[in-house]
Amino acid sequence: MKYVSFALSGQASWGYLEGENVVAVGLGDGAPVTLRDAIASGMDLSASSRQAPRLRLSEVELLPVIPNPGKIICVGLNYEDHRKESGRAQVGHPTLFARFANSQVGHNHPLVRPKESTEFDYEGELALVVSRRGRFIPSDEAFEYVAGYACYNDASIRDWQRHTSQFLPGKNFIATGAFGPSLVTPDDVGPLDDLRIRTRLNGEMVQESTLGHMIFDIPTIISYCSTFTELEPGDVIVTGTPGGVGMKRTPPLWMKDGDVVEVEIDRVGLLRNSVIDAR
Amino acid sequence: MKYVSFALSGQASWGYLEGENVVAVGLGDGAPVTLRDAIASGMDLSASSRQAPRLRLSEVELLPVIPNPGKIICVGLNYEDHRKESGRAQVGHPTLFARFANSQVGHNHPLVRPKESTEFDYEGELALVVSRRGRFIPSDEAFEYVAGYACYNDASIRDWQRHTSQFLPGKNFIATGAFGPSLVTPDDVGPLDDLRIRTRLNGEMVQESTLGHMIFDIPTIISYCSTFTELEPGDVIVTGTPGGVGMKRTPPLWMKDGDVVEVEIDRVGLLRNSVIDAR
Repeated sequence: MKYVSFALSGQASWGYLEGENVVAVGLGDGAPVTLRDAIASGMDLSASSRQAPRLRLSEVELLPVIPNPGKIICVGLNYEDHRKESGRAQVGHPTLFARFANSQVGHNHPLVRPKESTEFDYEGELALVVSRRGRFIPSDEAFEYVAGYACYNDASIRDWQRHTSQFLPGKNFIATGAFGPSLVTPDDVGPLDDLRIRTRLNGEMVQESTLGHMIFDIPTIISYCSTFTELEPGDVIVTGTPGGVGMKRTPPLWMKDGDVVEVEIDRVGLLRNSVIDAR
Repeated sequence: MKYVSFALSGQASWGYLEGENVVAVGLGDGAPVTLRDAIASGMDLSASSRQAPRLRLSEVELLPVIPNPGKIICVGLNYEDHRKESGRAQVGHPTLFARFANSQVGHNHPLVRPKESTEFDYEGELALVVSRRGRFIPSDEAFEYVAGYACYNDASIRDWQRHTSQFLPGKNFIATGAFGPSLVTPDDVGPLDDLRIRTRLNGEMVQESTLGHMIFDIPTIISYCSTFTELEPGDVIVTGTPGGVGMKRTPPLWMKDGDVVEVEIDRVGLLRNSVIDAR
């Protein structure tokens, strides 16, 4: 199954994909209002899907897969080639920072380069969405807490990321976190390790790895996060980017107005966004 | 005015203080359901207050002032004596990290020392709550975006804060961020600079400063944050702690089961929490 959050005539809702259609479950009577609510309620679609309106995918605007997560936990420096290019020491735990929900956009929505910086960099990543509440989750049970996967472009304003020791400002400019196109359930994705993740800028491959190259794998990340916080349905964990970021190239490769950036992960999808300058 | 969020028989609501009573505006018909909603709707209390139930303050459980903020932005290293004791370099911008809402507790609710660490440290701070939506807020207009102030104990698990370069895990254990007792409106607080902020552990003063000693003042913090993100009603900004934290004492002074910790700020209030061990 592939779930999407979308807007139609300014109304936000959600549904699932059926070929070129969206079965707009969220527009049916009595259905959960958001995909996050639907996940929290256990995703029983049997009753509400039958009478849900069918829409053409082309007529809706895709939103971030979860537009309103309670938490967005991002893992930094989680592929060895990116850790090395960033000149960061090896550490024994995942490096975590937060995004706020209002930094996100959906598939096909422009990423916005702010006036404050030209150092606008891509980071192709795998995101997962939490299915149910959990704390102290053992790593061998971690996948039971995953509702599904999507692509994420954790685009970063590098000079603001380096203003201090903490990454937060450079990771939270408005319209810099692309999340989509859809939430793909684990049964449709299958084993993760051999899946390729690729980022293309204007058609040219700039990052390429496989998900098995993560330093801290998904069970380790979920178990670690759930030790300090309680994970909740709809929470998002963004699992880190491979080497090849623009900042570490000579000369640096920054995203600019008119660019098109794509993050593609085998079996998970293709997330495409244009880049525009803030007005 | 002093606003509170509270729970009564398991139902969360909000109101304002009138002597020893809570005027439970949120329990009235058609009133905003949460204090965050009330702030977003402009805090017009005239109609809904008249028919709101009056409760004894002693019969309700105080919740975090804003239990469900969209963002909690914390400023680290924002008093010179704490920056020096922490051995951190001077920086040209506020050091920012995030808390998640589920790390918070209210006045009189125990702070919980997790099983994972004994390094449980206090940090007395001033918190502000954002009144209205804003981006690119000039510093000379920043106070127009403040709904009010409260005390905050940004209690920290120091070893987890130092697992990597990013503070997030050590700042987000469940029940480690105390926020209360009430939201005091700016007209009741008056000028900030000379107000004393004090933290006491078991009655002994362990931190003492005045709010004027912040390295980055509130207008600077608001203006900086609103450059990358859009501030929204109910967002919380926690403005940093003075010197004297337990980690930097010889021997270190950690909070433990049975302790009582208080953060008191002139004209803002007294936030008191006991400390218990996680079961």
